[in-house]
Amino acid sequence: LPLTPTFDLIFVGFGNVARRAARLLEEMGPRLPFTARTVAIVTGHHGATCENGWPATLPPPATDGSSNAHVVAALAEHHRAAADEGRLICVETTVLDIRAGEPAISHVRAALSGGAHVVTANKGPAAFAYADLAALALSVERQFLFEGAVMDGIPIFNLVRETLPGVRIESFRGVINSTTNHILTMLERGVTFDVALREMQEAGIAEADPMLDVEGWDAAAKTAALMNVLMDARVTPHEITREGVRHVSAKETRAARDHNQRLRLVASAGRSRGTPIGRVQLEKLPADDILARLDGQQNALVLGTDLLGDIAIVQRHGGLTQTAFAIVSDLAKIARQVPLSTLPHRTP
Amino acid sequence: LPLTPTFDLIFVGFGNVARRAARLLEEMGPRLPFTARTVAIVTGHHGATCENGWPATLPPPATDGSSNAHVVAALAEHHRAAADEGRLICVETTVLDIRAGEPAISHVRAALSGGAHVVTANKGPAAFAYADLAALALSVERQFLFEGAVMDGIPIFNLVRETLPGVRIESFRGVINSTTNHILTMLERGVTFDVALREMQEAGIAEADPMLDVEGWDAAAKTAALMNVLMDARVTPHEITREGVRHVSAKETRAARDHNQRLRLVASAGRSRGTPIGRVQLEKLPADDILARLDGQQNALVLGTDLLGDIAIVQRHGGLTQTAFAIVSDLAKIARQVPLSTLPHRTP
Repeated sequence: LPLTPTFDLIFVGFGNVARRAARLLEEMGPRLPFTARTVAIVTGHHGATCENGWPATLPPPATDGSSNAHVVAALAEHHRAAADEGRLICVETTVLDIRAGEPAISHVRAALSGGAHVVTANKGPAAFAYADLAALALSVERQFLFEGAVMDGIPIFNLVRETLPGVRIESFRGVINSTTNHILTMLERGVTFDVALREMQEAGIAEADPMLDVEGWDAAAKTAALMNVLMDARVTPHEITREGVRHVSAKETRAARDHNQRLRLVASAGRSRGTPIGRVQLEKLPADDILARLDGQQNALVLGTDLLGDIAIVQRHGGLTQTAFAIVSDLAKIARQVPLSTLPHRTP
Repeated sequence: LPLTPTFDLIFVGFGNVARRAARLLEEMGPRLPFTARTVAIVTGHHGATCENGWPATLPPPATDGSSNAHVVAALAEHHRAAADEGRLICVETTVLDIRAGEPAISHVRAALSGGAHVVTANKGPAAFAYADLAALALSVERQFLFEGAVMDGIPIFNLVRETLPGVRIESFRGVINSTTNHILTMLERGVTFDVALREMQEAGIAEADPMLDVEGWDAAAKTAALMNVLMDARVTPHEITREGVRHVSAKETRAARDHNQRLRLVASAGRSRGTPIGRVQLEKLPADDILARLDGQQNALVLGTDLLGDIAIVQRHGGLTQTAFAIVSDLAKIARQVPLSTLPHRTP
C-alpha cells in the first residue's frame, strides 16, 4: 500500500462549496492520495465547532461576519503537532467582501503564519494580496492554493504551473462568471432577467449578494486573480475596467443573435507597454468564437502564450461539484508534496 | 539560487522534433527548472555521436533503421554515474513502425532497464506497450513520459495526472491529427488533396510516411495511447476501428459545409459493457460543435469525466515548436521530482 498523509482540516466558512467539498472527500475516499478528517469548523455567523466540543482554551469566534483570524491562529496553535508535520490545512471559503478581499485575506495570513497550508475557493486573497501571501507561504514552506477561485473545477492555475513550465502568459480572454452567462443565455431565449437570476441563486451558483455577479464584480475579481498569478501583475479588482449585465435587454441579446452574434460578458487582459491591463466588458462576438458558443454554466478561458500560441480550456458543465472538486484537487497537490519521511509507517 | 538538476541527454532519433527540442532547450535556458547537456545522439540511418567522439568500448549503431537498443543499453552503462543519480534521460523520437511500435519500444525498455528516465514524442510505446513499460518504469523508479505523443504541446497526460486526481475518464472525442485536419480544411477551400498534403510535409508536420496520416493510422495510434493511459485499456492501434481521408472529395466537404456541417476525422473512445472501444472515423459535425470549428493545425480533445462532466482543451496553433515543447515540459516534470539530496550544493 502506498503511504498517504492524513490531513487535519480546519474549515473557515462552511457554505455550499465547503459542505459539498466535505461530502466529496467522503465520496472519493480511496481514489484520493490522502485521507482527511475535519478537526474544526469556523463560520462567520453560526459559531464554531471542534471534533470534541470547543476547547475552553480557545477564543470564541466572531459571529457578525467579521474576521476570525484570531480563532484561526489559536486553532493552528491548538494543532501544533499536525502543523509541524505539514498535515494541517485551512480550507477557506468565507463570503467575499469586494471592498478589500476580507475577511479571507486575514484568515489566510493567520493560517499560514500558524504553519497550516491554505486551500481556498475564495477570490479575495489572490485578487487583492497574491504577491504578499505567496511570499508568506514560501517563507513558512506551506502551500497557498486557490484552484476553485476562478474556474470551478477547471484546473487553470495547476495547468499553467504544472504543465506549462517556462511558458509566459501574455494575455487571456474568457467567460468566467456563470451567473451572468446564464442570464445572457436565458435573455436570448425569452426568459426574464429576474427569473434567470433566481435560477442561479436557487442552484447555489450566484454569489450570496448576486449584485456582485450582475455588476461584474465577480468577473473583475477573477480577472485580477488571473492577472496577479499568471501575468505577475499587482492589481486589485478595483483597477479592472468593469461593465455589468444589469442594463442588457432581451431585445439586445436577440438582435445580436439575429446578426449571427452573441452578447457575452468577456474578461480579458493583456499588456500595454509592459503593464498588465484588465477589463470585464460586454462584447458582441461572432457566433463561431469559442466564447460565443458557451451556454448557461459553461466557462472557458483562452490563454495567449509566448511559445505555444493560444490554448483554450472549456468547462462544459459548471456547478457546485466542480468548485468543490477544485478544493479536493488542491488537497491532492499538497499530498504529493508531503515528504515521505513524515508519514507513519504502514504495513500492507 | 534554487538548486536545479543537470540532465545528461541521450537523443535516440534526431529528426525535426528532436532538433527543435534541442534548440528550444537553449532558447528557454534560464526559464527552465533544470539545465541539460547532450551526451550522445543515436540515429537510425546516420550513425551516432558522443560528446567527445564515439568511445571504442561502445558497439556501433545499426544504420538500417532497425533497433539500436543495444547501443542505448551500452550508453546507459557508459553513463552509470548520471543514471544512478537519476540525471540520465533518453529522449526517444525515432520513426514509428505502425506494425508493432518498434524500434521505439525496445529503445524505451533498454533505457529504463539501464536506469535512464525516458521522454518520448513517439506514439508507439504508449500505443502498443503502455502497461508493460509503465510497470517497468515503476519497478526501476524512473519516469516514462510521452506528452508529445498525442497533442503536441497540449499537456493532456499531465493535465489528467497532475490536475484531475481521482477523476475517471469515461470517454473522449477529439481531432488529433493535424495533417488530415489540414487536408479536410483545404479541400473545403478548393485546394487539392495533393497540394494540401505537400504543405504539411514541407512544414515537417506530416509523418515521414504520410500514408500513416492519410489512412488514419496516426490518429488510431494516438487513440490507443489515450485509451491505454487514461482509460486503463490494453489495446493496440490495430484494434481501433479506422477510417482515413484518402477517399474524401472536395465536393463532399463543400456539400457538408453547405448544410452548415463540417467533415472532420474524429478520434473517440467510450466503454461498451465496461470494455473500452476506440474508433477513428469521418463525421459530419454540426458547425457549432467544438471539433467542427478547428481549422488547419488546430487540435482539440473533449474528455468525458465522471465527476466534472466534459472538459475540453483546444490547441489553436499546432506545430513543431509545440511538439518540441512537450519534450521540454516532460524534462521539467522529471526535474521537479529529482530528490534535492542528489544535487550538488550551490552558493548564491
